Amino acid sequence: MTFTKLVSDLYEGLWQPEDVQISATASSTAVLRVMNERAVFAEVFRLGKASRPELAGITGLSKPTVAVALNNLEEAGLLRQVGLRAGPAGRSALLYEVRPEAGYVLAVDIGRKFVRTALADLVGDIVARKEEPSRGARNRDLVAQLTRLADELAGTAGITRADITLAVFGTPGIHDKANGSLHLAPNLPGWERRNSLARLGDITGATYVVENDADLAAVGEATYGLGRGVRHFVYVSIGTGMGMGIVIDGKLYRGFRGAAGEIGYLPVGDGDPLLDAPESRKRGMFESVASADAVVATSQRLGMTGAATAKDVLDAARAGDPAALRTVELEIDHLGRALAGVVAVLDPELVVLGGGVGGHAGDLLTGPLLDRLGDLVALHPPRIEVSTLGNDAVLLGALASGLTAARDLVLDRAAPATTR
Amino acid sequence: MTFTKLVSDLYEGLWQPEDVQISATASSTAVLRVMNERAVFAEVFRLGKASRPELAGITGLSKPTVAVALNNLEEAGLLRQVGLRAGPAGRSALLYEVRPEAGYVLAVDIGRKFVRTALADLVGDIVARKEEPSRGARNRDLVAQLTRLADELAGTAGITRADITLAVFGTPGIHDKANGSLHLAPNLPGWERRNSLARLGDITGATYVVENDADLAAVGEATYGLGRGVRHFVYVSIGTGMGMGIVIDGKLYRGFRGAAGEIGYLPVGDGDPLLDAPESRKRGMFESVASADAVVATSQRLGMTGAATAKDVLDAARAGDPAALRTVELEIDHLGRALAGVVAVLDPELVVLGGGVGGHAGDLLTGPLLDRLGDLVALHPPRIEVSTLGNDAVLLGALASGLTAARDLVLDRAAPATTR
Repeated sequence: MTFTKLVSDLYEGLWQPEDVQISATASSTAVLRVMNERAVFAEVFRLGKASRPELAGITGLSKPTVAVALNNLEEAGLLRQVGLRAGPAGRSALLYEVRPEAGYVLAVDIGRKFVRTALADLVGDIVARKEEPSRGARNRDLVAQLTRLADELAGTAGITRADITLAVFGTPGIHDKANGSLHLAPNLPGWERRNSLARLGDITGATYVVENDADLAAVGEATYGLGRGVRHFVYVSIGTGMGMGIVIDGKLYRGFRGAAGEIGYLPVGDGDPLLDAPESRKRGMFESVASADAVVATSQRLGMTGAATAKDVLDAARAGDPAALRTVELEIDHLGRALAGVVAVLDPELVVLGGGVGGHAGDLLTGPLLDRLGDLVALHPPRIEVSTLGNDAVLLGALASGLTAARDLVLDRAAPATTR
Repeated sequence: MTFTKLVSDLYEGLWQPEDVQISATASSTAVLRVMNERAVFAEVFRLGKASRPELAGITGLSKPTVAVALNNLEEAGLLRQVGLRAGPAGRSALLYEVRPEAGYVLAVDIGRKFVRTALADLVGDIVARKEEPSRGARNRDLVAQLTRLADELAGTAGITRADITLAVFGTPGIHDKANGSLHLAPNLPGWERRNSLARLGDITGATYVVENDADLAAVGEATYGLGRGVRHFVYVSIGTGMGMGIVIDGKLYRGFRGAAGEIGYLPVGDGDPLLDAPESRKRGMFESVASADAVVATSQRLGMTGAATAKDVLDAARAGDPAALRTVELEIDHLGRALAGVVAVLDPELVVLGGGVGGHAGDLLTGPLLDRLGDLVALHPPRIEVSTLGNDAVLLGALASGLTAARDLVLDRAAPATTR
């Protein structure tokens, strides 16, 4: 896939961070002018390049109003002229496009083992990206590492951290906005404390948004992946933890408290000895028996030695190891029951598999999973496909959502300049 | 609850039957005129009574345009004058309201044991209603019974079946529009055959809509019940079958194939001996172990004699019968697991319980169910409340949805008269 010009299909409003407030200015004439500029800016964003007559036609504003808006947006450094387009009757129209340097989005995927970061300009070109092992999941260590990474990415792009318009952080768990903390993220110790998330704001000094990683991955799939054009689908992450992002009517569905898709707590897995392990109590039933760790533990229980990771087990299964094959069978049974629950409730058109296990074992999982589902669900099972975004689904979702929000933020911040 | 003036809060578009197509007329002037009339009509619907200046203010149309629209709508028999409202500076404005007789909606709840019917005029007043035991679930018998009931209701209202604008039928199962049949409705034998639903159209000769009964009940709750003003909630029906209607962002969510909420197929109930019964195979796992029939079967297995219905078991539990109490405990365990799955996926704000068991055992179920859920879900459980609409939830949902659609249908049919 290509990372360039990601913005054009973002305008439809798939996602709007709930945290970002776009404020309006005081006087009603100024409000009107800002609204007109917003409409013109949004259309240039969507079209890539646009002329004054085109923009007048689309927005319904008069050509002089569009001309004023374009002039203000250009003076504010948000748009630039980019050439001429030949028009009818020999006339040609000046074209405008978004000035890429008018804003930057920092996208961060905070996993337990890796942190992935990318910096994109306002038209969605990724200007720098870097991933590295996590230096520790604790608040202080992670913030220090992310601050350094933000510095490095900004340096590569020839800007500073302070030039970043918006940072979007994907994390496990549920963002408690009232408390400024994370719930249900046992893999990130310390982040359950009140106001612990506020430190993420110090990394760039800019507006920041925290979203559930599986939710962002679903946004990534909807924007750049298998979910494009699919009205109702789910992204299911099977790895260190279990998570699900839900897209309904083309929009991310978060639930009442942001806990929709917390499928780690699906009550499936009865009879699995892993449920008796003491550490299983603080995780949900499904996650306890089917996560990457559980795959390793199950393989050991079945007599397999030497598997340190789920990948080792999957590779051994591919090589025909009987204990590994039996482990995969049990995993498929757990996954089948969990997905049967998801299908019974949501009836999605498509299930996209991702995560450390789900994204790298399509050859072992997809076929048997469809068979297992066929026994459990009411109608024939939905399509099940492995994400084509690989490890980038969360990062790309963060970018997609961040770009939509950044478009409004740069305009909002430029408002004093444009309302002179 | 009151049945009168149900329409005013329907305008927000909670529900729009997918079957009903509103066609536009040919010439663009005519289209514009119809659009203006539609806007004016919709506002009178919403407001109950409205004057020309009010309508001009709300719709943004000019007063003369509103006057023409009102005149056409009155000539077409859709609106009527209803008096004067004192205005500023001593002037008074003529008020218009919807003519109740301009349209009728027939609402039908097809249960296994009972059929419930209601006829409402265009402003939502129920002018006749009747319920009686079903004369047989088979296609021919049921259509004959419903035709007779429609005749009776129409007669009571002083109209004929042919005057009915729209009929809405709530049934178990999933309406397969391509096939004109029902899936997953084992309690309605014969309706799985191709085009079997077309016979419902003969009952009134009018436009008809078939919707899943639990989905309609959710619409009923959203419009008149506990779901009013709740953004995300579910209606869970526990009775002859298990069903769920899902409201997301204030709108009914049907899923990709209309099978969202088919919770009878939730994979919970492992270890229950009922799952081994041969007839359980064609029903979902949860429905097999937790429906009304399953409650009776479980009580018998536990040594209770003489319980013919789930109600008998519930009454015996209230009287302290040990086998009945143990049956209720098992029911709560099954329900707890099913709801834990629903909560993990959807994170609803509210769970409304309805159906023959769910709607009449709040005293036995709600408290223990919350406790059980507390052990299974990630955050604290959502509110669980018993429907206040009793046995009318499906019927009221059919009415609510039908009235919204009928408003457009009467206008559409009157279009030739208003575009002279």
